[in-house]
Amino acid sequence: MADENGAKLMGAKRLWLEEEIQDDLRWLYSVKSILHAEVSDFQDVELLETGPFGKVLLLDGKLQSAGADERVYHECLVHPAMLHHPNPKKVFICGGGEGSTAREVLKHKSVEKLVMVDIDKVVCDFCEKHLEDNKDTFKDPRLELIIDDAKAQLEDQEDGEFDVIIGDLADPVFGGPCYQLYTQEFYENIVKAKLAPGGIFVTQSGPAGVLAHTEVFTPINRTLASVFPKVIPYLQHIPSFADCWGWNMAFKDGEAQAPLPVDEIDRRIQDRLSGGSGALQFMDGVAWTGVTSLNKIVRGSLEGEQHILTIASPKFIHGKGVKQVNF
Amino acid sequence: MADENGAKLMGAKRLWLEEEIQDDLRWLYSVKSILHAEVSDFQDVELLETGPFGKVLLLDGKLQSAGADERVYHECLVHPAMLHHPNPKKVFICGGGEGSTAREVLKHKSVEKLVMVDIDKVVCDFCEKHLEDNKDTFKDPRLELIIDDAKAQLEDQEDGEFDVIIGDLADPVFGGPCYQLYTQEFYENIVKAKLAPGGIFVTQSGPAGVLAHTEVFTPINRTLASVFPKVIPYLQHIPSFADCWGWNMAFKDGEAQAPLPVDEIDRRIQDRLSGGSGALQFMDGVAWTGVTSLNKIVRGSLEGEQHILTIASPKFIHGKGVKQVNF
Amino acid sequence: MADENGAKLMGAKRLWLEEEIQDDLRWLYSVKSILHAEVSDFQDVELLETGPFGKVLLLDGKLQSAGADERVYHECLVHPAMLHHPNPKKVFICGGGEGSTAREVLKHKSVEKLVMVDIDKVVCDFCEKHLEDNKDTFKDPRLELIIDDAKAQLEDQEDGEFDVIIGDLADPVFGGPCYQLYTQEFYENIVKAKLAPGGIFVTQSGPAGVLAHTEVFTPINRTLASVFPKVIPYLQHIPSFADCWGWNMAFKDGEAQAPLPVDEIDRRIQDRLSGGSGALQFMDGVAWTGVTSLNKIVRGSLEGEQHILTIASPKFIHGKGVKQVNF
Amino acid sequence: MADENGAKLMGAKRLWLEEEIQDDLRWLYSVKSILHAEVSDFQDVELLETGPFGKVLLLDGKLQSAGADERVYHECLVHPAMLHHPNPKKVFICGGGEGSTAREVLKHKSVEKLVMVDIDKVVCDFCEKHLEDNKDTFKDPRLELIIDDAKAQLEDQEDGEFDVIIGDLADPVFGGPCYQLYTQEFYENIVKAKLAPGGIFVTQSGPAGVLAHTEVFTPINRTLASVFPKVIPYLQHIPSFADCWGWNMAFKDGEAQAPLPVDEIDRRIQDRLSGGSGALQFMDGVAWTGVTSLNKIVRGSLEGEQHILTIASPKFIHGKGVKQVNF
Repeated sequence: MADENGAKLMGAKRLWLEEEIQDDLRWLYSVKSILHAEVSDFQDVELLETGPFGKVLLLDGKLQSAGADERVYHECLVHPAMLHHPNPKKVFICGGGEGSTAREVLKHKSVEKLVMVDIDKVVCDFCEKHLEDNKDTFKDPRLELIIDDAKAQLEDQEDGEFDVIIGDLADPVFGGPCYQLYTQEFYENIVKAKLAPGGIFVTQSGPAGVLAHTEVFTPINRTLASVFPKVIPYLQHIPSFADCWGWNMAFKDGEAQAPLPVDEIDRRIQDRLSGGSGALQFMDGVAWTGVTSLNKIVRGSLEGEQHILTIASPKFIHGKGVKQVNF
Repeated sequence: MADENGAKLMGAKRLWLEEEIQDDLRWLYSVKSILHAEVSDFQDVELLETGPFGKVLLLDGKLQSAGADERVYHECLVHPAMLHHPNPKKVFICGGGEGSTAREVLKHKSVEKLVMVDIDKVVCDFCEKHLEDNKDTFKDPRLELIIDDAKAQLEDQEDGEFDVIIGDLADPVFGGPCYQLYTQEFYENIVKAKLAPGGIFVTQSGPAGVLAHTEVFTPINRTLASVFPKVIPYLQHIPSFADCWGWNMAFKDGEAQAPLPVDEIDRRIQDRLSGGSGALQFMDGVAWTGVTSLNKIVRGSLEGEQHILTIASPKFIHGKGVKQVNF
Repeated sequence: MADENGAKLMGAKRLWLEEEIQDDLRWLYSVKSILHAEVSDFQDVELLETGPFGKVLLLDGKLQSAGADERVYHECLVHPAMLHHPNPKKVFICGGGEGSTAREVLKHKSVEKLVMVDIDKVVCDFCEKHLEDNKDTFKDPRLELIIDDAKAQLEDQEDGEFDVIIGDLADPVFGGPCYQLYTQEFYENIVKAKLAPGGIFVTQSGPAGVLAHTEVFTPINRTLASVFPKVIPYLQHIPSFADCWGWNMAFKDGEAQAPLPVDEIDRRIQDRLSGGSGALQFMDGVAWTGVTSLNKIVRGSLEGEQHILTIASPKFIHGKGVKQVNF
Repeated sequence: MADENGAKLMGAKRLWLEEEIQDDLRWLYSVKSILHAEVSDFQDVELLETGPFGKVLLLDGKLQSAGADERVYHECLVHPAMLHHPNPKKVFICGGGEGSTAREVLKHKSVEKLVMVDIDKVVCDFCEKHLEDNKDTFKDPRLELIIDDAKAQLEDQEDGEFDVIIGDLADPVFGGPCYQLYTQEFYENIVKAKLAPGGIFVTQSGPAGVLAHTEVFTPINRTLASVFPKVIPYLQHIPSFADCWGWNMAFKDGEAQAPLPVDEIDRRIQDRLSGGSGALQFMDGVAWTGVTSLNKIVRGSLEGEQHILTIASPKFIHGKGVKQVNF
C-alpha cells in the first residue's frame, strides 16, 4: 500500500537527489519518498523524506532546510539578535515563508508584533500544512503574514518601527531577485531607517567555511560595516548545507554591549523565552562564544575585505546558493 | 499546484534514478516525478515519469518497462511465437502482470482463451489502473487472470492444453524465485507437457549484446535445445534496458517451418491481427529477419555453449537482471 | 609499486568516468587506472583501463573506442564497403587517427594504397605507441598517413582516384569542425568526384537505436540519397557507445549489386582477406543480413525523412556525439 | 604533452572520485589528474589533483588529507597539546606517515626528539617524495622515523618518556587494525604509562558535527575521562572531510591549567614556534576559544555518554572513517 503521506519508494536507495555544491563537487543523498509537491507561480515546492537528513524542503530542487538540522540554522539566525536587544517587541522578517524563523521569534515572550513578508503564498500554505513543527506558528495572533515583495513592504513601513529585522532570504545569485537586498543601498536607505533606536538587523550571509567564506560572507560583513556602527559576524557548520554557514548581526547603536558574555546569554534565554532554556536545542552562552570566536583564516579575510556590495557592484555566490528564491 | 497524477518535481533534473547495470557500470536517468507508488507483499511498485524514457514501471526499484520502448520488447516477445503457430487459440503467460504481454497476445484474432498467472495482485491492479495502454487488456473477456505461482498453475493445467506458452518472468537471479523456471526440468516436465501438438514456447532470455550474451542467453538456448527439437534465438536492442535483449522460441514440432520468410510474416500480420499491419510498431517480416540474423560472435557462443541449466546446476545473471520478481 | 603501465588505482572502484549521453541520461563506468595521457593542440588524449569495457581511448574526455567492442564498430565501418567493391585498390580515410579503421582496410589483400588524413599527429603517435593491436598498421608500407585537414586533402586529390572512401569522423556537433563533412556539398563536390567509377563511400552516421536514429542517421541517409544513386543504411548495437550505431554506404554506380547475399559476402571474406574468415570477429554474411534488415520503426523514419543537410541547413547531434574532434 | 608530474586529464571534469560518507550520502569530487600512485603491502597510495580540494592523498581510495585544508586539521591536532605543555621536549606520534603531523610538531623550538611510528614505509617514502610541504620534515635530525606497529613500539619505550603523545591513526572501523588504539586498555596501560609527569595525550576522534558526533567522538571522550583526570574535547569543520572533526586532549596532571586563555595561547605561539605567529594559518587564541566552546547539542551528548571503549566492548564508526589504515 502507498504510504498515506504520499508516494513511497522503499527500495529506492537508488533514487538520489543531486546537489551541485560547486561545479566540481556534488552531493547525492538518497531519497526515500516524495511526501508532497506543489508548483507555485515562482517555484516548485517539495517535501522529501531523505536518508541522511530526514524530511527536507526543496524550492526549485534546492535544499532549503532539513528536519535533521534546521533548528541549528534557525536558532543561529534568530536568537542572537533577539537576545542582544534589551526588549524586542516588534520584529520584521524578510522572507521566511517556511515558518521556522517566525517560530523561533515567537518563542520570545516580549514580542507583540511580527511582520513576515514572503513573495510566495504557496510556500507559506505548503509549510503551514505539511511542516508539523511550524503549524502553530502560522496560527499565532502576533504574526502578520503578508504575501508580497519584502523590500517594497519594508519600505512602506514607518521609520523607526522595528526592534529587530531579520533577513531570511535567498543567497545573492546572479539573475536572482534577492541581490538588491544584500546591498549598501538597501541597508542604508531601508533597513537602518526602519529600525527603532537600539535596533538590530541580522542576515544570513552564505557559506562561511575556511574555503568558501569570501564568496559573500565577508563582502556582506564589509557592506554592513559601511552602514552600521557595529557588526558581529558568526558562523556554524550545518550538515545539510555541506558547509559552515555565516550570519552578520548589525547594530544601529554603536554603544550596544555585544557580544554578550556567556552568563548573560544564558540568563536572557531562561528569562525571556517561553519554556526557558528548554526552548532551544543548540544555542546558549557557550555555543554563542563558539560561533563568534572565528578562526584566524576567516578573521584575516574579514579584515582584508574591500568589497562593498552596491547595486552597481554586486557580488554573486557561485550560482549554487543553498537558500533560494524566497523573498 | 500539484500534478493531478501525483507528486511533481518540475525542477528536478537533479533527481536521478540509478540503475546498477554491473558493479562497474551505472546508469542514472533523470526523474521528473513520481506518478504512483504502492507496496505489495512481494515488492515495491512505482510508476515514474523520466526524462529519457517517458513513464517507467519499477519493481523494487528496477526498471521493468518504459513507455518509450516497451512495445519493441513486447512485440519481440509475443508475435514471433504467435505468428509461427498456424492457429493459436489457447495461450498461457507465466508472469506478465504489467499487462503488455497480454495486450499483444489479444491482438491475435484467433485467440479464444488467454491464461495469465502472476504472483502479485497489486502489480496487476496497479497496471490496470495506471497504464493507459493496457486498461482494455484487463477487461478483455478472453483473459483469465490468476493470482498465483505460475509454475504451480501451469502444472495444474491439462496436458497438451496450450498452443503458445510465454515466459515473461524475472531473470534468473541468485536467491530469486524464478530460476527454476529456466531449467531443463521445468521445460521438459511442465512446459513441453502442457503444449498442444505444434505448440510453441517462447521466453525472454536476458541480455544478449556482444559482451553479455553468455550470461544466460546462450545457456537458456542450450537448455531448450536439450528438450525441444527446434529452437530459434533472436535479439534486439532495447534502449531502456541498456543492452540488446534476447529471446528463445522453442518448437514442440521439429518439422515446423521456422523462421518464416519475410513475406509470410507480413501476410500473417495483415491477416490475423486486429488492425492488420497497423497494429504493430516494430515487428514485421524484415525486422524479423533482422532480429534472427545473429552476428558471428553470438552465433559462435551459441554453438560453443555447454551449460544445461538444471535445478542442480543453475546459472545466475550477475544479480542485476532487469526483469525482476514477477512470477 | 606502481603498475608499470602507469598510474594504478586498485581500490578505486570509486573512481568513475561520467559520460553524459543526453541531458537526462548519464553513464558512469569505473576507472581502474589512467594508463597514458597526453595533450595535443587539438584535444586531450587518454587511455584508461576501465571496468566494463577494458582499455578505452578518450578524446577530450569522450569515449572514442573501447577494447571490448571496437572491432564490432570498425568491422561494420570498413568491410561492407570493401566487400561490395569488386576490387578495391585505393582507399581514402577521412580521420581515423586511432588506426583501427586502417587496420581493417589493410586486411584486404587487394589494397595497394591507403591514404589516411587526420588533423592530430599526437593522436596518431599516441595510438601507434599504446594500442597494441594497431602497432603494425602504422608500419604498413601501403599506408600514407597525412597530418592535415581531411576535407582539404581529399579536395586536392585527383578526381576519380579512390575505390573506397571512408568517413571516420566526429559526429556533427554544433560548433564542432566536422559538420561540413556531413553535407550535400561535401558529398556532391568532393566525395563523389574523387570516387573512381564503381566507387563506394561509407560514413559513420551517429546513434541509430529506436529512440535516437532521427538525430543524424536518417538525415545523413537522406542527404546521401540526394547525391548518390544507391545508399544502404545499416546499424548495430555497440555496448560502449550506449546505443545502436548507424552507417550509410553510398554507391557511385546505381547498378551495383547491393546488398550482397550471405554466401557472396562469406566467399569474398574468405578469398580476399589475409587470414580469410578468421580475420573477422563480428562480420560475415549472416551478420550483414542482420545489420541491414532494419526494423519497421527505423525504416519508417528513413522513408519519411525530409532533411537534406547542407552548409546552410545543417543538423547537429544533441551535443553528445560519441565520436569526437578527429578529422 | 603529458604533465611531467604524471598522467593529466585536462578535459576530465567528468572524472569523479566518489566518497561514500554514509550509505545514503555520497560526495563526488572532480579529478583533474592522477599525479602519483603506488601500491604497498598494506594499501594503495595515490596523490590526485582534484577540483575542489587541490592535491589529495588517498589511502585505499579514501581521502586522508587535502592540500586545501590539511593545515586546519593538523594545526588542530598538534598545537593545542604542544602549547598546553609547559616545555615539550620529547614527542611520540602514533601513525602520521604523511609527515604533516611531524611538520607541525617540529615547528616547536623546544622539541629535541620526535619519534614517529608508522606501519607503512611506502606511504612515508611516497609523501617525503611527493608532498612538497613535508619534504624538509623527513630530513629534520630531531625526527626518528620507525616503520613498525605503533602500539608495539610505544609499549617498548621507557615509562614516563614523552611529554606529548599524538594519536594520528585511522578511525576505529570494524575489522580495521586500529580499534585497539582507541580503548581504555591502551590509554591506561600504555599511553598514560609512557607520558612523563605533566604529559599530554591528544587523539583525532572522528566526525563531530551535530549529526555524527556520537559515533566515536563522545565515546572516545568518555573513555579517556575514565583514565585521565582532565580531558578537553574540541572540534572544527574540515571541508574535505565533509563534516566537523573532533579531537580529545587528555592531561596526566589534573591540576594543569586548561584550556588556556586567549592571550596565553597567542603568547606561547609567538614565543615558542619557529616563525612565531606567522607559522600558523588557522590556530590562535581566539580560534582555540572557538573550537573548545562546544554547542549545547554536543555538550549534552558528552555529558550523557556512557560507553567506555574496551577491547571487549569497542565501538566502530559506520565503516566510512575518513582516516584510514595508517598505524
